[in-house]
Amino acid sequence: MPRNAFYAQSGGVTAVINASAAGVIETARKHDDKIGKVYAGRNGIIGALTEDLIDTSQESPAAIAALRHTPSGAFGSCRYKLKGFDKNQAEYDRLIEVFKAHDIGYFFYNGGGDSADTCLKISQLGEKLGYPIQAIHVPKTVDNDLPITDTCPGFGSVAKYVAVSIREAGFDVASMAKTSTKVFIMEVMGRHAGWIAAAGGLAAEKEGDAPHIILFPEIKFDEAAFLARVDESVKKYGYCAVVASEGLHNAEGQFMSEAGTKDAFGHAQLGGLAPLLAQLVKDRLKYKYHWAVADYLQRAARHIASRTDVEQAYAVGKGAVELAVAGKSGVMATIVREAAEPYRWSVGEAPLTQVANVEKKMPPEFISADGFHITDACRAYLSPLIQGEDYPPYRNGLPQYVQLRNVAVPKKLKTAFEVK
Amino acid sequence: MPRNAFYAQSGGVTAVINASAAGVIETARKHDDKIGKVYAGRNGIIGALTEDLIDTSQESPAAIAALRHTPSGAFGSCRYKLKGFDKNQAEYDRLIEVFKAHDIGYFFYNGGGDSADTCLKISQLGEKLGYPIQAIHVPKTVDNDLPITDTCPGFGSVAKYVAVSIREAGFDVASMAKTSTKVFIMEVMGRHAGWIAAAGGLAAEKEGDAPHIILFPEIKFDEAAFLARVDESVKKYGYCAVVASEGLHNAEGQFMSEAGTKDAFGHAQLGGLAPLLAQLVKDRLKYKYHWAVADYLQRAARHIASRTDVEQAYAVGKGAVELAVAGKSGVMATIVREAAEPYRWSVGEAPLTQVANVEKKMPPEFISADGFHITDACRAYLSPLIQGEDYPPYRNGLPQYVQLRNVAVPKKLKTAFEVK
Repeated sequence: MPRNAFYAQSGGVTAVINASAAGVIETARKHDDKIGKVYAGRNGIIGALTEDLIDTSQESPAAIAALRHTPSGAFGSCRYKLKGFDKNQAEYDRLIEVFKAHDIGYFFYNGGGDSADTCLKISQLGEKLGYPIQAIHVPKTVDNDLPITDTCPGFGSVAKYVAVSIREAGFDVASMAKTSTKVFIMEVMGRHAGWIAAAGGLAAEKEGDAPHIILFPEIKFDEAAFLARVDESVKKYGYCAVVASEGLHNAEGQFMSEAGTKDAFGHAQLGGLAPLLAQLVKDRLKYKYHWAVADYLQRAARHIASRTDVEQAYAVGKGAVELAVAGKSGVMATIVREAAEPYRWSVGEAPLTQVANVEKKMPPEFISADGFHITDACRAYLSPLIQGEDYPPYRNGLPQYVQLRNVAVPKKLKTAFEVK
Repeated sequence: MPRNAFYAQSGGVTAVINASAAGVIETARKHDDKIGKVYAGRNGIIGALTEDLIDTSQESPAAIAALRHTPSGAFGSCRYKLKGFDKNQAEYDRLIEVFKAHDIGYFFYNGGGDSADTCLKISQLGEKLGYPIQAIHVPKTVDNDLPITDTCPGFGSVAKYVAVSIREAGFDVASMAKTSTKVFIMEVMGRHAGWIAAAGGLAAEKEGDAPHIILFPEIKFDEAAFLARVDESVKKYGYCAVVASEGLHNAEGQFMSEAGTKDAFGHAQLGGLAPLLAQLVKDRLKYKYHWAVADYLQRAARHIASRTDVEQAYAVGKGAVELAVAGKSGVMATIVREAAEPYRWSVGEAPLTQVANVEKKMPPEFISADGFHITDACRAYLSPLIQGEDYPPYRNGLPQYVQLRNVAVPKKLKTAFEVK
């Protein structure tokens, strides 16, 4: 009797994490000699702790296939990090209790750096607590900050959204700049690494193209240099388009958006780096401005997903199951860049001991010497990741995203568990 | 010898105003027995006043065809409203001087309500100042507030962008709500009319779908009712997705987000409502929130344009030229809804005397009784406008938008004219 699999989504969701889910479930179904049912955690690992499991075998092949073009986390995700064995063994005991009750022998965890750490700990349950389980990590994060893998599924689609959006907004502002808005600021995600902001740079293919300035968390904000560059761009090209990472911080290391600044009326800023920068531009340079904060729109934008990203997201889900079937545990499926031009990639693997709690930063050589744009090396790295479109089906003018039935697996345990 | 045509883009640009330009130029080229060259105003009407004309005959057929899939204003637009004859006749005298020098007998003005008023005044130049010219208005405005025409080209694409975006963000928040963000607020354009916000309502096709709340400028903001509705939605569906019009105002009639600045037309510059509402939700309900301000991204989003909108934008450009060729003046090309289901439309005409300075408001019966959503009647009106996709071509993962050569027509006048 093959043992069942547990699959959960973790942390911030993306436009393509469900493509990974489709990869896991469809591949597991093909290996029914080795893998029984795939149970998904409702709201991620919390579903495992509370024995709130979803029976994915109740979903039709069409519904699972539709996950490939559906953004968000179809089973629910959560921000919840398991503590160490020493600090909260009760959680691990509970997981084993639930896994045992449902004969779970495979653990597929779809998340970023924190989740890789959790996945590593689960892979050690056999050794530490005597419960044998194969744990495989499925990488996902728009932040693109996991090590070893060439890229993180989810990132390529945000990258494409940001590059497309700043190109479009740039065209808009260019045509209005004579009498109206001269400076446009788009705030994007990336609290600790500038990968997403960097992707905006792909839109600038020739001299004068938007964006003219990229503000990275890796570069301390230099107000005078920024204003000088904005002014130069307006004078040279008639306008200035800026992509600003939410993680931008000042010389003291504080996030600019949390630095206790006040607006023109003395009110504390309500949050948002873009309005802050816009106000600065207006106060000092007197240019008319507009700003946008894309927020979740950028990571949910399945309508403009990168085909490469969708394919890679599916492939790491499929690859994770194949690694499990091959007897592996404590590893993450990775994207390996086989060739740069033309771009070729494959799925590889990396030990979780080398992944957990390691953050991949932007290499310094990816940021131009002046700190305001990307280099050719960065462009060569990023460009393949946004290649191709993968449009979802539409009905009535709207993308048709699937909502699963999410039928609960009958509970077998009498005990409840409170998640703190 | 056929007389030449002048074409200009006016006011805020859209994802499809260049499709109208393509309609004007391609159709004029077909009528070369009646229309000579099409000269575009660089930066709109300012180009006419300063004799800064672009010779569109220097652009290849391929470049003009590419305008159909290029957002923004290819010749530059401006926010500049001609005053009345009495108040600044010098402007009209100057226009006649420029038009005479370049033998311009047709005036195509592509804009919204303010521009319709300008176009009407131009159509009266023959009668008032003895310069015969046919002036035809080509409707354009994301605000959808022009009268008579069934819709305004530019609106359908913003509508589609907003509906798609709130659906995607809604899926995202739904999957995270258990442990993270519970309330998401997306601010959209629409200073005085809630058409754009209303379009977000199309994403809600069944009970519980996002958006759960729409905030219209037509409905005075009721803080208590809003908070109660947010709370109800979170308790019932686990989360709450809100589409808020930038034009939302309080019981005293003030814009909630008044930024203290005004644009060139004297309109208040808005922006920053979403963070304000988010702060309110946090203070009163303690829910974790996120917010987005789409700003120009929404009106520049050619990548997700409505095919219906693109076709209509082209058709009103083409129709305007056909009206001119038929000897008409002082009219606007309109979209006529011939049938509701299946939707059929044609191009009609309306006298500018009935268009200029008339603002089409949302009918009260389009807003639900509680003031927080759209009615079935509104849905029936809006739904056809977002039908169909019309993807631009891509290269290197990015949409390929055309930048014209924009070759200047040699100046014939010795005199300069200063635009104030």
